[in-house]
Amino acid sequence: MSVTGRNRFERRRSQTRQALVHAAREILAESGDTSTSIRAIAERADVGFGSFYNHFTCKPDLFDAAVADALEDYAEAIDDRLRGVEDPVERLADGMRLSAHLAGSHPDIMRILCHSGLGRLCAGHALARRAKRDMEQGMASGRFAAVDPVSALTALNGSLLALLQLCFTLPQVDSDQVASKMVEMLLHLLGPSADEARGLARRPLPSAAS
Amino acid sequence: MSVTGRNRFERRRSQTRQALVHAAREILAESGDTSTSIRAIAERADVGFGSFYNHFTCKPDLFDAAVADALEDYAEAIDDRLRGVEDPVERLADGMRLSAHLAGSHPDIMRILCHSGLGRLCAGHALARRAKRDMEQGMASGRFAAVDPVSALTALNGSLLALLQLCFTLPQVDSDQVASKMVEMLLHLLGPSADEARGLARRPLPSAAS
Repeated sequence: MSVTGRNRFERRRSQTRQALVHAAREILAESGDTSTSIRAIAERADVGFGSFYNHFTCKPDLFDAAVADALEDYAEAIDDRLRGVEDPVERLADGMRLSAHLAGSHPDIMRILCHSGLGRLCAGHALARRAKRDMEQGMASGRFAAVDPVSALTALNGSLLALLQLCFTLPQVDSDQVASKMVEMLLHLLGPSADEARGLARRPLPSAAS
Repeated sequence: MSVTGRNRFERRRSQTRQALVHAAREILAESGDTSTSIRAIAERADVGFGSFYNHFTCKPDLFDAAVADALEDYAEAIDDRLRGVEDPVERLADGMRLSAHLAGSHPDIMRILCHSGLGRLCAGHALARRAKRDMEQGMASGRFAAVDPVSALTALNGSLLALLQLCFTLPQVDSDQVASKMVEMLLHLLGPSADEARGLARRPLPSAAS
């Protein structure tokens, strides 16, 4: 196959996968009913039934990928907002507070979370990967205490998911206020003094890129 | 209707509801596939199709009740272990650590959690109700700082769910050790000194009733 031919093949292959993932995201956002057949998903994605197995071994595989894809999109949107924030402690604080706006800013992704089992959520949590990096950098710089990273990340990850759920279920709650208070507590837990944690959790959030 | 007749009626009514909830719990534990028809659920529960609507307005209603019922069972098992622990701070610490054993001790309930969306989990979280009571008592007694209760409970609830998920996904993890470290961090967050939190998170757990 020529180089051009291979590139076209790879591009088409990637488009097919993305079409399947996109269809699965729609299903999760609409109803969360994952019992629909692979054939129906392929039809919705407008790809051949057989091509499903070129990309996924089974249906749960596809839905795992769909949740991971949605969370990756959201994490990238937060990354955009955090561009220019270099301090890992500030990144962690701002990142969690920005995440709390998910219910309002990305209702489709929020519905995917609500419809997805805990197993799928924790497996594909792109935000947690970033939190891990910020936490490790914060510990390396000495600003975070040397806590057990598994316990700390589990607490951050779970707290954030529960916060999102709370803001979605009770839209009357001031999500920024609850998020600030939770971030203040969680930062204090990681080492900074109560006063420093309060300051970090209340600083103005970086504005959206114009 | 005579008193005896009414009692029999009420008893039967409650049995029908419980049979439906039990069937829904089985479905959630087996596959989490909630697309099965109400008729199939009624057949599995061995009750008449029509009686479904005497108890539930729709299928999601039933599955919400099933998750709440499973968590209530588990919370009661933990209550049994905590009988005799009067200090609310110790209750909270021991309760979270005991909860972490869910994956091992009640695999059916753990599978229900893994298969259930975040919305359903947070709505029916009987453990969180108990944590709320212990936290309020801890604050009233002055041993917990006056933190924002919504933020603190959201963090506790989410952390615990993520911890359960972690222990289930990675059975090689020493769940008691991770749980102790997480509880130590979370307690410190609620007010007790680092040393006191460490002691509380490592004290011997109350043994199972003989």
